Amino acid sequence: MKPPSFFEQDRALVEAALERLLPAETAPPPSIHRAMRYSVFAGGKRIRPILCYEAARIFAADPAPAVPVGCALEFIHTYSLIHDDLPALDNDDLRRGKPTCHKQFGEALAILAGDALLTRAFETLAAAPLEPGRRVQVIAEVAAVAGTVDGMVGGQVADLEAEGKPPDAAALEYIHRSKTAALIRASVVAGALAGGGEDADVERLRRFGEKIGWAFQVVDDILDVEESSAALGKTAGKDQAQKKATYPALYGLEESRRIAADLAAQALRELDSYAGRAARLRELGEFLVARRA
Amino acid sequence: MKPPSFFEQDRALVEAALERLLPAETAPPPSIHRAMRYSVFAGGKRIRPILCYEAARIFAADPAPAVPVGCALEFIHTYSLIHDDLPALDNDDLRRGKPTCHKQFGEALAILAGDALLTRAFETLAAAPLEPGRRVQVIAEVAAVAGTVDGMVGGQVADLEAEGKPPDAAALEYIHRSKTAALIRASVVAGALAGGGEDADVERLRRFGEKIGWAFQVVDDILDVEESSAALGKTAGKDQAQKKATYPALYGLEESRRIAADLAAQALRELDSYAGRAARLRELGEFLVARRA
Repeated sequence: MKPPSFFEQDRALVEAALERLLPAETAPPPSIHRAMRYSVFAGGKRIRPILCYEAARIFAADPAPAVPVGCALEFIHTYSLIHDDLPALDNDDLRRGKPTCHKQFGEALAILAGDALLTRAFETLAAAPLEPGRRVQVIAEVAAVAGTVDGMVGGQVADLEAEGKPPDAAALEYIHRSKTAALIRASVVAGALAGGGEDADVERLRRFGEKIGWAFQVVDDILDVEESSAALGKTAGKDQAQKKATYPALYGLEESRRIAADLAAQALRELDSYAGRAARLRELGEFLVARRA
Repeated sequence: MKPPSFFEQDRALVEAALERLLPAETAPPPSIHRAMRYSVFAGGKRIRPILCYEAARIFAADPAPAVPVGCALEFIHTYSLIHDDLPALDNDDLRRGKPTCHKQFGEALAILAGDALLTRAFETLAAAPLEPGRRVQVIAEVAAVAGTVDGMVGGQVADLEAEGKPPDAAALEYIHRSKTAALIRASVVAGALAGGGEDADVERLRRFGEKIGWAFQVVDDILDVEESSAALGKTAGKDQAQKKATYPALYGLEESRRIAADLAAQALRELDSYAGRAARLRELGEFLVARRA
């Protein structure tokens, strides 16, 4: 399935904003800015910022204020990839078809580039063009999903601790929801907040984001089994080699596909009440679970 | 020189708040919460939160809202120590007389505990009992000093890159101002903001914080040469062994002492206009440059 027609246009907006929101490569000390930019501009699809932008569009004629918010989410996503790839964690040499940050710049700079991107995310959110009350809501939401309690760090810890253990459905669900779904959910929630959605809208989009994010990770597990390394731009079959907790390992491929489709359907139903206003977000959701890489 | 009489009382307030603001050790996944708490409760002096609290007192009859703000600064300080101690950076085994986080919990958990404390800092600031406009100002200030441009990550990168090179006054000043003075300055600025200071007050306290933070780091360099490991709770003489850029290495001990005293005097003059209202902050400033460990 090809991305929605508006995808490349949104992506260009996001790329330009990411460029603007990062310090120049020449700013001292240049080495850290080179490392940050290397990983941010390594070919990410920008799914989180685009979800944020298109969620804001449901509520705002001009969703532009959601662009820097989405970029902050991309910084957090990139920081998490840089740190997860480190030798002490997943020890990955390849990411999006390129050497990982620590392979390219050494471990010290990779650790610090991750730290700097996480920090830059909050600096970006603090300066987002939203009224202060909304900015604080977005920051609280994003900080919570990046943290340890049902958040990304918690999910990563559970993932590391599950390696080599027999598959466990509860642990697997915790890992996927915390490590991946949480940030995707926050992208949609932050978009609803940036677009000026009411509380009930924010909660509806939260349910959409949770389910679509979860489905997204199940699809990721499936692709790791099905696709070649070339198509994925990372080492395929690695989950199995590392005895990672995955849906195919626990439920098999067919059942995993059914689970992903079911979660996606539940997610998309949340958008029904917005009818045409949510057309783009709906297309995005469909794309995220039908993608091949 | 002994700490000011109010120091232990302030510290007890801060300890209780840190305890409240961190997830319980039993919260899943427990391992990461154990690692976070191990490093936060490893015996820090709580200089940054106490500076924040006492800066707020100049402007507020009750500086209590500054306590969680100060705790967020302590989380950032602790994260920076955990990551700086990692094998890929300073490779330190001992911190405050105890095994460093990665020695105790392994590198993966140490990296993630640092990430989690940085994240928790912003989550704490987003929930601080200040009106949203002030919260956003504090978050912007703190994120900037934790970052790469004249901030902590920038200072750490410059420090790593200066190792083994001939001493350079400009590089040394950049490192000390970015790596240490910036967070101390932010502690005082955040306190002024939390206490309700006007813009002119915030700028005055910024100048105080900058100078006192810089003096603090020069004193740290001096103590590294003069004191034993036992008194410092970390490996003494390590700066020299690692050929770190320090004031004593560049200027000698006597001149370094003069520089620290001069910076401290400049800092304290900024407080003159507050007279007795700044008595405690003044005492703190004097203590920070006269301490022996």
